[in-house]
Amino acid sequence: MTQEPISLDKALASFTEQWSPRIVTRVNDYDVRIAKVEGEHLWHAHEHTDEFFLVIDGELTIALREPEAGERTVTLPKGSVFTVPRGVEHKPTAPSGASILLFEPTGTLTVGDRHEEVPDHVDATTGHDLAVEDPEA
Amino acid sequence: MTQEPISLDKALASFTEQWSPRIVTRVNDYDVRIAKVEGEHLWHAHEHTDEFFLVIDGELTIALREPEAGERTVTLPKGSVFTVPRGVEHKPTAPSGASILLFEPTGTLTVGDRHEEVPDHVDATTGHDLAVEDPEA
Repeated sequence: MTQEPISLDKALASFTEQWSPRIVTRVNDYDVRIAKVEGEHLWHAHEHTDEFFLVIDGELTIALREPEAGERTVTLPKGSVFTVPRGVEHKPTAPSGASILLFEPTGTLTVGDRHEEVPDHVDATTGHDLAVEDPEA
Repeated sequence: MTQEPISLDKALASFTEQWSPRIVTRVNDYDVRIAKVEGEHLWHAHEHTDEFFLVIDGELTIALREPEAGERTVTLPKGSVFTVPRGVEHKPTAPSGASILLFEPTGTLTVGDRHEEVPDHVDATTGHDLAVEDPEA
């Protein structure tokens, strides 16, 4: 099957769930995922991988607990990128909502390898496949 | 040193060279690169890696020579993504110019592992570091 380009806007319009990433494409053994987020995620850490964030729309803040810098918060306006280093506890938050794009190894859990209790509004997953529209339809 | 979020607009404004990717951040052993492109790249293939494209601005077309589908061209408007599978010869073109984001293993050559003659306007490189502005300035 040949692949076609995917519009991120259309892909984002194909689902409504918050904090529940969709896999838009794969690059070797990495996923490119998109997610709609609003409110608070949870404190968690990925022990074996960095995690890349690109803000497609809205604004994301990420609270970080870093070995040297201690606890701080970074703000990502639309069109900005940030990589959370492996092992660093972090908590993404989007008070007014945001759409984000993530790069991370296939199989990476949204809640990391260690985390606080998972609230109901956060989907503990390795990402869902995007529901692809039929190009013949 | 702590990392700060990077604005893609500011990063793109920090250089003028065409077809000469800048590395904005690293994710494990992968680079996130951005490039300004206008006109034609060259036919090339990456034997050992897929290559991910996201169009930040403008429009990119990618000519492909695929084993089954043969030669075809995909068009990526602003805000769309596409992954060129490993081994597939491809030639990106942007007649009216575009800004793109790439995700690929650190060390990946812009001209691939096999390619036609490299024209003067294409930078054969594994990416350049972004000239980072001093946050204290």
